[in-house]
Amino acid sequence: MAQEASHPFDQALHFEEEGETQVGHTSPAYANMIGPYGGLTAATILKGALTHPAAIGEPIALTINFASAVKEGHFEIKAREIRTNRSTQHWFITQSSGGEIVTTGTAIYAKRRETWSSTEYQPPAMPDFDTMESMPRGSKPAFAGMYDIRVVGGESQMFGAKNEDGEPTAESLLWVRDNPSRPLDFLSLVAIADIFFPRIFVRRGTFVPAGTVSMTIYFHAGEAELRAVGEAPLIGHARAGRFWNNYFDQAAELWTANGQLLATTNQIVYFKE
Amino acid sequence: MAQEASHPFDQALHFEEEGETQVGHTSPAYANMIGPYGGLTAATILKGALTHPAAIGEPIALTINFASAVKEGHFEIKAREIRTNRSTQHWFITQSSGGEIVTTGTAIYAKRRETWSSTEYQPPAMPDFDTMESMPRGSKPAFAGMYDIRVVGGESQMFGAKNEDGEPTAESLLWVRDNPSRPLDFLSLVAIADIFFPRIFVRRGTFVPAGTVSMTIYFHAGEAELRAVGEAPLIGHARAGRFWNNYFDQAAELWTANGQLLATTNQIVYFKE
Repeated sequence: MAQEASHPFDQALHFEEEGETQVGHTSPAYANMIGPYGGLTAATILKGALTHPAAIGEPIALTINFASAVKEGHFEIKAREIRTNRSTQHWFITQSSGGEIVTTGTAIYAKRRETWSSTEYQPPAMPDFDTMESMPRGSKPAFAGMYDIRVVGGESQMFGAKNEDGEPTAESLLWVRDNPSRPLDFLSLVAIADIFFPRIFVRRGTFVPAGTVSMTIYFHAGEAELRAVGEAPLIGHARAGRFWNNYFDQAAELWTANGQLLATTNQIVYFKE
Repeated sequence: MAQEASHPFDQALHFEEEGETQVGHTSPAYANMIGPYGGLTAATILKGALTHPAAIGEPIALTINFASAVKEGHFEIKAREIRTNRSTQHWFITQSSGGEIVTTGTAIYAKRRETWSSTEYQPPAMPDFDTMESMPRGSKPAFAGMYDIRVVGGESQMFGAKNEDGEPTAESLLWVRDNPSRPLDFLSLVAIADIFFPRIFVRRGTFVPAGTVSMTIYFHAGEAELRAVGEAPLIGHARAGRFWNNYFDQAAELWTANGQLLATTNQIVYFKE
């Protein structure tokens, strides 16, 4: 526990309770170009409900809407319990910074029971984590240093990717884990779900201003399953559907090395030109 | 306009303004087994913001959380403008029925400009609409009669689908349009995005209690592009990622006949066993 509490991710998600509000502080370690890394903001929103005394069950779905950049300094999280049924619970969560709402989220919690189960997607075939090189942080924003990312095909596949036929593609396969490593939980899984660089960079091989506007994560594992993953790296698979007039969609899956689909995630991303 | 107003879909989305609230009424034509067809509820939530005098631009993303069944009779829609930036706008919308919130939604609007564009997914190869048979309504709930659905492989592919190798699959390809036909707009597109029967029926070939808990739609077309589609049928392609302990995810695309990707949509669905 002492080790966990000292991880920069846990420090970044340390909130103080002030009545119905939780007060946090932006983290230089997870800074993006403007404001915090979106994955950290997503985890911040989830934590607003996760630590609420009224919460039941475990998260099954989370949507985060990035309305504006989180300003450096303090922010406030408010989790509003919208409705609690026998086995599901709905939350509306806001993050305010400088007196204005900058992020909204809806989270759904559920008590699950064991059922018939089946994984329909094929787990990607991957080279061994240990045989691949970590992407250097280089000139990337601070948060990129907080993840060990190993992209199939090397870093060139993140800026101007080619498919097997040598044609431009928006698809990436990678390994990812926290750096330094940290036992997986819902919060770090949510943060990792945003680790896929904007597909516009991958597809066009050039940097254009871009930023996630909304992101949705569906969870296909519970707390016990995430705990069992421990500090092992995850496999990430991402692609895009359509780039059109300032926005594109991005879809991704997160897998364990042994083929367990932990989460599916989608986002819609702004791009300038 | 007279013709449009008389379509049952437009009747179902007729609201009366009462101050900040819009009051609607459940529609027998779009009834599901319990409460209204989820696609109609999704359109109801979008309409809450779409008709708001403060709305700017066009919808780019919509998430609807189905917290409880909408009770028969009147319901109230409240659209709260969370934040308006230069080119984007964030909404939180609630639907109340019997004095309790039954549905929540977040919608993002944006003013788009023309940019570099590219469709990354392959449009599905489809038999001609006219050569295929409409799925009979049979014993399905009322709303199924409000759509002309033509499934590749026939109705048997909706309950116990097999892939090319003869193995069970959760994947479907279909044509769909309103019945009677109606010019496409954001509202009907949102409703159509929920037309894919729960993948659990498709995959297992049996009926189990199931219901959508949350649904997200990303729009890849504007009002003018939707208007150009007119009353032509759309191509729908749906699949599932993982069924696990009461919940599964479902992903789908909606295409025009000539390969324009109009929307990508995802949902997480409850199933009982």
